[in-house]
Amino acid sequence: MTHETVRVELGAGSEKDRSYSVLVGDGLIADMAGLAGPLLRKPVVPVVTDENVARLYRGAVDAALQAAGKDARWLVLPPGEATKDWAHLAKVSDFFLTEGVERGDHVIALGGGVIGDLTGFAAAILKRGCGFIQIPTSLLAQVDSSVGGKTAINTPAGKNLVGAFHQPALVLADIGALATLPMRELRAGYAEVVKYGLIDDPEFFEWCETNGPALLAGDADLRRHAVTCSVAAKARVVAADERELSGTRALLNLGHTFGHALEAETGYSDRLLHGEAVALGMVLAARYSVRSGHMDADDADRIAAHFAACGMMAELSDLGLSCSGRRLADHMLHDKKMDAGTLPFVLMRGIGAAFLDRAVDIDDIAAFMGEQLA
Amino acid sequence: MTHETVRVELGAGSEKDRSYSVLVGDGLIADMAGLAGPLLRKPVVPVVTDENVARLYRGAVDAALQAAGKDARWLVLPPGEATKDWAHLAKVSDFFLTEGVERGDHVIALGGGVIGDLTGFAAAILKRGCGFIQIPTSLLAQVDSSVGGKTAINTPAGKNLVGAFHQPALVLADIGALATLPMRELRAGYAEVVKYGLIDDPEFFEWCETNGPALLAGDADLRRHAVTCSVAAKARVVAADERELSGTRALLNLGHTFGHALEAETGYSDRLLHGEAVALGMVLAARYSVRSGHMDADDADRIAAHFAACGMMAELSDLGLSCSGRRLADHMLHDKKMDAGTLPFVLMRGIGAAFLDRAVDIDDIAAFMGEQLA
Repeated sequence: MTHETVRVELGAGSEKDRSYSVLVGDGLIADMAGLAGPLLRKPVVPVVTDENVARLYRGAVDAALQAAGKDARWLVLPPGEATKDWAHLAKVSDFFLTEGVERGDHVIALGGGVIGDLTGFAAAILKRGCGFIQIPTSLLAQVDSSVGGKTAINTPAGKNLVGAFHQPALVLADIGALATLPMRELRAGYAEVVKYGLIDDPEFFEWCETNGPALLAGDADLRRHAVTCSVAAKARVVAADERELSGTRALLNLGHTFGHALEAETGYSDRLLHGEAVALGMVLAARYSVRSGHMDADDADRIAAHFAACGMMAELSDLGLSCSGRRLADHMLHDKKMDAGTLPFVLMRGIGAAFLDRAVDIDDIAAFMGEQLA
Repeated sequence: MTHETVRVELGAGSEKDRSYSVLVGDGLIADMAGLAGPLLRKPVVPVVTDENVARLYRGAVDAALQAAGKDARWLVLPPGEATKDWAHLAKVSDFFLTEGVERGDHVIALGGGVIGDLTGFAAAILKRGCGFIQIPTSLLAQVDSSVGGKTAINTPAGKNLVGAFHQPALVLADIGALATLPMRELRAGYAEVVKYGLIDDPEFFEWCETNGPALLAGDADLRRHAVTCSVAAKARVVAADERELSGTRALLNLGHTFGHALEAETGYSDRLLHGEAVALGMVLAARYSVRSGHMDADDADRIAAHFAACGMMAELSDLGLSCSGRRLADHMLHDKKMDAGTLPFVLMRGIGAAFLDRAVDIDDIAAFMGEQLA
């Protein structure tokens, strides 16, 4: 079982060292007990997952832990975004307490972004913080949500509005798990891969243009390369700005402010997956960057063309919304990055040249969204 | 309005500076807008409190904020420990979100330990962390829970088992607020004052012996001195070991492991207040230290005699429990400081000489508790 290792360096050498490794490769779930090693110090290992993931991997995880003389204890939750709520946060916490989890122990989050965000948050607040291991099984979780320590639940006021920064102790990104993903989810996760190219790596965007369709069609080597490059990019950003204080980490929100407005308007439903919203949001960020004179129209067209070539929605009009641009802009005002009445937007000067613009006029955004809806 | 200022130094000079001031004096609530200054950057200020505290101080807080051109927005919760639960945590979070609280804003916790712990925890997780100001109105909150950044709620498995480390940006300890406290609550808070003497300051314990009864009877200057000394002691410990990693902060748990067992056995009810449990717990820690050969019996007697002189319960037999020593010891095993099957106990070599013993045998504790119950 060979794998690549990406280090996320956080306070290395200090007493508050929170550095950890992200392993990317095939067969990591089968080898998880060996890879986690001393992090699993007790005979019992609590694992949180959802019903879909349990159906696929419960047997493999049980076998892997049993071979190391350990027993998995399972909490299997309903799949879907609705699970990221207060009630399930309490349920996960009670599960950990019942299993006797202590501050020095490590629990396991096995699944996509919902399971990782929820379990990571529960670990962050259990006895004011216990350890956790991310085993992301979706492309989106492997390239984005499992790395970097952002954990959260949703509330009636919006997504991810309550949460914590809490870094995992280890991330096992098993490329083999991607083989069981539905194509729609793969494409949604792929949007976050493309994002790293658009932020600061034009060569990687070119690589995506060349290899994206084959990656989505199933090429394991391409998937492994894409996940490794994406994790390495995210690790660099998180190491530079763990808590989103300097503005560096904010660049990872490229496409997310526009995308969140679309998710809010579609009720955070299956009508639009998060990654699909991010892809559309990045096209909108590109078009708005063109409209504001920051970027050439050719670059924006090239981004939209790549998503279209991958069989993804590439223009807002593809979504068929019937609301106003003002309404979409209003959704953005609930963003948790709002500060003293202004909302920073990630725009682009070109492909691989994202920047944070803190002076965007929300009325201008409303007018722009109206144009795009037409 | 003169006041003393105690600084809690945490990462001063670094980009993660979380240092803050604790102001101790009379009339601080009336002057809160001026003292908080730029921390209250918006015209609207969310305040969380309970019904009892609202009855006493809502008018003063409204007036203080209005004089500074600001409006208080109130969330008034039921008084009592039962409010520190998941449902009220969600309620406080929703309140902050509805009021548009952003990461850079500061909300206010006005009340005792329940309100401070709950509001501080909600602030810790709101958008992954917003600012908060503690205005503690009980003696217990002024000398202990409002300082140091431990926030939490209770769960079915026990007290404070879910929470976060999140430091306030400012603490206003208004000595005037103590004038309205019932004597029983005052005495309960006083136990935590005495604790600082027992940990590492024998002169302060002597000061307590001399001045405790007059302090409880109402002397404002003595109260001010006791709060200032207590906060300064806690600030030193928190600065040395913010997250309870080195063992220094664990000394603040003197009396708490024994005390928690008594609280659990009495159902965390009005039958035994937290501070009352801590006082009994410190006597038990002293007696156990004597039994283990660490401390002279005279010192333990002197501690019990001081609580008795203050009109407080001073021996376990005063509580009238009818359970076994084993049962009390079993309650201790749910402590969140349990690590790999061992529970560290804070014991004493003498008055002002507390130390952490990681090798205490829980069976021996059970036998000891049985003797004390007899």
